[in-house]
Amino acid sequence: MTPGNPLQPTAAIEFYFDFISPFGYFASLRVEQLAARHGRTVDWYAIRLGVSVVKIMGLKPLLETPLKGAYLVREAGRYARLHGLVLKRPFDAPQMDPRACARAFYWFKTHRPGSEARLAGALLHAHWVDGLELGTPQAAAQGAGRAGFSAEEVLAAIESEESQALLRAAVEAAVARGIFGSPTVVIDGEPFWGVQSLELAERWLETGGW
Amino acid sequence: MTPGNPLQPTAAIEFYFDFISPFGYFASLRVEQLAARHGRTVDWYAIRLGVSVVKIMGLKPLLETPLKGAYLVREAGRYARLHGLVLKRPFDAPQMDPRACARAFYWFKTHRPGSEARLAGALLHAHWVDGLELGTPQAAAQGAGRAGFSAEEVLAAIESEESQALLRAAVEAAVARGIFGSPTVVIDGEPFWGVQSLELAERWLETGGW
Repeated sequence: MTPGNPLQPTAAIEFYFDFISPFGYFASLRVEQLAARHGRTVDWYAIRLGVSVVKIMGLKPLLETPLKGAYLVREAGRYARLHGLVLKRPFDAPQMDPRACARAFYWFKTHRPGSEARLAGALLHAHWVDGLELGTPQAAAQGAGRAGFSAEEVLAAIESEESQALLRAAVEAAVARGIFGSPTVVIDGEPFWGVQSLELAERWLETGGW
Repeated sequence: MTPGNPLQPTAAIEFYFDFISPFGYFASLRVEQLAARHGRTVDWYAIRLGVSVVKIMGLKPLLETPLKGAYLVREAGRYARLHGLVLKRPFDAPQMDPRACARAFYWFKTHRPGSEARLAGALLHAHWVDGLELGTPQAAAQGAGRAGFSAEEVLAAIESEESQALLRAAVEAAVARGIFGSPTVVIDGEPFWGVQSLELAERWLETGGW
């Protein structure tokens, strides 16, 4: 906290998620209201656990990790039941390739700023609620098309070299910021990892930190 | 939940912790009150992350994991500040060998049943609050001695072949139950991993699960 900085009270909350992360999806349903309750906005960032967890941290994919994989599947189901979420996507299904969705996201964030959160929400909904596989450019474009986006424009965005470069740079920047898990919210520089951290993050917003 | 089972309402909450885990220590300060609020007791189990995380799951020690290690140190400090805990033990210090403490714990659990939670609490306090290294049998015995236990008896317990076998069997049994992290509480068969899960665990106790 920097007292006296007039920009700080309205500084955006950074929200990092991976399209393949159920807990990232869960947080995506709450983060805008969380921010709004405290006069904040949300700056969304798609990340790739395949880079942070597997390449940088040197760990196994979460679902392939003995004991923990089974626990996280159970925890995700428990969260969904508690929050009344009915999802067609099984939590233990093989994970799709999130790159098509993430490339579309960053192209829209760059060229249609202000629409990227709605695009992310549409793709997350298509994947988790409707159970669609969005691992190819065509499928991701169709998924976005169902929510009113131009499937042609989304497909061109995904297939552009620019969106590939944007995604790579964003994932590298997130790792450089210390971000490794989905979801993570960052409030005035303070990171909160995990959907279970959202209550703590709200306490941070209420109190200004401790 | 098994309706009609008269034993269930008072079934003990299982509490798994590793002496080297700050979050396990944090949970140890709350789990007895949590259980008591719902007419439950607590059955304590020392586990070894060095077995579950490193050997079984094939991951790195948490503090040596890039990005995550630094985050967990930060999160532990944030938790301690929020809860007013003043600890001499730095969260980023090299971890002690927990086996001496854990052997003493299981020997007392077997031969002085009812005293093991107090012994665990004394050793956790000595390590985290007082900052003592308890990685050798002598140091662990002295740590217990400061809390009124017979240091001689504790030392003999740690050095017995029996306590070594008890610890090994308990760690194997925990892994077989799917337990991998510290802390974990299990309520009527439902596991809750992480100190941040304690609120959810309490909701489970209040509602009977969902």
